[in-house]
Amino acid sequence: MRATEILSHKRDGGTLSAEQLRFLIRGYLDGSIPEYQVSAWLMAVYFRGMTGEETGELTREMIASGDSIALDPARRPYVDKHSTGGVGDKVSLVLAPLAAACGVSVPMMSGRALGHTGGTLDKLDAIPGYLSVLDPERFAAVIGEVGFAMTGQSERIVPADRKLYALRDVTATVESIPLITASILSKKFAEGADALVMDVKCGRGAFMKTPEDARALAESLVRTGAALERKVVAVLTRMDEPLGAMVGNFLEVEESCRILAAPEKPAAGFDRPAFEDARLADLIEVTLHLTAWMIVLAGKAPSRDAALALARERLLDGSAYRAFCANVEAQGGSLKDLEAGFGTRRAPLTEEICAGTDGVITEIDAYRIGMAGVDLGVGRNRAEDDVEPDVGIELFAKCGERVRAGTPLCRVYAVSNDALRAGRERAAQAFVIDPGAGAESLGPRVIEELHELE
Amino acid sequence: MRATEILSHKRDGGTLSAEQLRFLIRGYLDGSIPEYQVSAWLMAVYFRGMTGEETGELTREMIASGDSIALDPARRPYVDKHSTGGVGDKVSLVLAPLAAACGVSVPMMSGRALGHTGGTLDKLDAIPGYLSVLDPERFAAVIGEVGFAMTGQSERIVPADRKLYALRDVTATVESIPLITASILSKKFAEGADALVMDVKCGRGAFMKTPEDARALAESLVRTGAALERKVVAVLTRMDEPLGAMVGNFLEVEESCRILAAPEKPAAGFDRPAFEDARLADLIEVTLHLTAWMIVLAGKAPSRDAALALARERLLDGSAYRAFCANVEAQGGSLKDLEAGFGTRRAPLTEEICAGTDGVITEIDAYRIGMAGVDLGVGRNRAEDDVEPDVGIELFAKCGERVRAGTPLCRVYAVSNDALRAGRERAAQAFVIDPGAGAESLGPRVIEELHELE
Repeated sequence: MRATEILSHKRDGGTLSAEQLRFLIRGYLDGSIPEYQVSAWLMAVYFRGMTGEETGELTREMIASGDSIALDPARRPYVDKHSTGGVGDKVSLVLAPLAAACGVSVPMMSGRALGHTGGTLDKLDAIPGYLSVLDPERFAAVIGEVGFAMTGQSERIVPADRKLYALRDVTATVESIPLITASILSKKFAEGADALVMDVKCGRGAFMKTPEDARALAESLVRTGAALERKVVAVLTRMDEPLGAMVGNFLEVEESCRILAAPEKPAAGFDRPAFEDARLADLIEVTLHLTAWMIVLAGKAPSRDAALALARERLLDGSAYRAFCANVEAQGGSLKDLEAGFGTRRAPLTEEICAGTDGVITEIDAYRIGMAGVDLGVGRNRAEDDVEPDVGIELFAKCGERVRAGTPLCRVYAVSNDALRAGRERAAQAFVIDPGAGAESLGPRVIEELHELE
Repeated sequence: MRATEILSHKRDGGTLSAEQLRFLIRGYLDGSIPEYQVSAWLMAVYFRGMTGEETGELTREMIASGDSIALDPARRPYVDKHSTGGVGDKVSLVLAPLAAACGVSVPMMSGRALGHTGGTLDKLDAIPGYLSVLDPERFAAVIGEVGFAMTGQSERIVPADRKLYALRDVTATVESIPLITASILSKKFAEGADALVMDVKCGRGAFMKTPEDARALAESLVRTGAALERKVVAVLTRMDEPLGAMVGNFLEVEESCRILAAPEKPAAGFDRPAFEDARLADLIEVTLHLTAWMIVLAGKAPSRDAALALARERLLDGSAYRAFCANVEAQGGSLKDLEAGFGTRRAPLTEEICAGTDGVITEIDAYRIGMAGVDLGVGRNRAEDDVEPDVGIELFAKCGERVRAGTPLCRVYAVSNDALRAGRERAAQAFVIDPGAGAESLGPRVIEELHELE
């Protein structure tokens, strides 16, 4: 077998066999196939795509490049959720305990913030004492105790993905649907998930800007899952404005707790129930839908609608919050210190941005809010940068709301004057207020749900 | 400027600026841009192509990567010819002295045989004593003395092409029209040519299999020439069966001399004039057309037809052969030893292949004859292999001729029994004889002539 033949076959629109993909990936990892051939293959894949079978084989080969986490077979099936990344996206913090409370085993591996999108791991690090990186044994044990565990990715899981991603990043081949698919699925299946719910976001704050692109990725994920005989459900959700009201690390943990603890609000110290706060409606909607599909995939409900009802019930009866609390304690966090920060733990420098005119908010550009977050220290431009736990942005209104000139639109929290100025300026540019528009909701955030194609 | 931006711009179908191409090529040569980015760019170019302006800028940058040969300005314009490679293609050996005899200054740089296609340099090496590689000063001096000189490519000319070609070869990006265009034109213009006639071959023995592909390359060459303000004429010629009757190194030199020396055949010792030999009609047709365009580009005739008439006249009056002889002597060859070999200098092992049935020859597959030549030692599979000067194949008949069972179709000359067996077998597979077909000529070899597009 020769690499050039594999390259020209893909270049000419052919489908690579399992043996050819194995030869390529193993050769890349052991150094017998040089990077310049791999990058030419990546670019050919960018143009020619891959079939579901082919993407499945690539995924399989990537999984085989590293360790797989052994989880207790008695608790199967394990179901995880993954998102393509958004702004204010704290869904995982609510969804994981909620799914666990519904009887789903959730082995959740998360990433860090990069660019305008946030990272669950950075949010977890804002919980006092919380160990966001567990070794595989402890990870498995916490799932056994609590029903779910949260951790970062191990270096030993899918090393092929790290190496390939680094090469894609410098060869303009990141934006390839089959390559994105294999990257996501290889990590999720190597970490022990038997099934996966994907939150494929689309809109100005998402990686995929249009529903068409998002749908293509969603279809690829579902199709490739089928090729690997693992169930994948993909839910297309809007990411035009930030999800919920908070963008920040501690701020988003607090907001998640508001939702989880709504039924027992005195304990959490919130002044009004989260379910009555219109700013959180989109977050709750998306979280319930994604959780419902996890419940279906785990076989804990017979239909999506039954699963939705179960999820709502477990959220309202407090069992989701109890699961959250059990996890915080199991992973070394202090609930007392966490709750002590609610409503008070804020970076010291603060400023409000107010509406300049009467009208309806027609846009809160999630990308700009995300980049304002980077200015403030919520996220990072480069993987090696640090983040600030207590900075961020609180939105006081959402799209479709009517405001008057002078109404506060959001508040910015910063740890330095430079960051405050930069973040404030960028956040202000995110808002569009149209004096002539009518007050109108953006409508449901869940656009489409894809499962079992063909 | 960043390489990834250049890559994504080309990937998305954009046109690169002169600055971007300069950054890329210089960075590649000085090592600041790694091969994996260059190969991804090559694959993106494979899919997206390049405009004529862009190809021109790439060509310019490639020329700037090395030396350019300084030729006597008094003899300008210098006009060269280049072919995309064929089987039995000894056109250069006749054309260069013929063009010189018509007043054209010809700085001819040739290559070696590779794969099924022959190489002028290997043919020249079959002339006793001939120095086929001249230093630039001697090259210029021989043109001054004789009107043309023949040499191999200097290592110092267009090093970017050697480096890029080596990378294209292992990344399945050889077959890209703009990259082929820049590779050809950069070498020709760096060697001192002011204008160029391109023989773009198409058919089963050519790099371009279809007239459409050949035309696309021809158009790219003419358009890019225009972008560089140098005149390029591209002539599309058929390469389905070998050109002329001989395939070999010395055999092809001998055949060229038969044509050049036809008017004074006793001196050359040939038993019948080349112009009466139907097997050479295609070779003479193609040579005269290509030479005519060189004459037009050098301003030595007002039209292609006038140039054709001039070329015919100079071939028939013996002045082309005199130019050839003067060049052989100027480049150290022995005419006496050369002529002594005519008709007798043959590899010792020989075998005839005869028709197995009555019928008309409908195919003499140039690719198979070329590969039979590689088996015999005419050409080589790898650049580092040696060639044999005296081996080869003589065709006794051409396509369209009626033969009877037992009629000799060709004779194979070899230096070992293994080579004889392999070459004989492969050559035999090249012939298709159709008992039901009518005797019919393949028609003109020149399909189309392209110049001054737009």
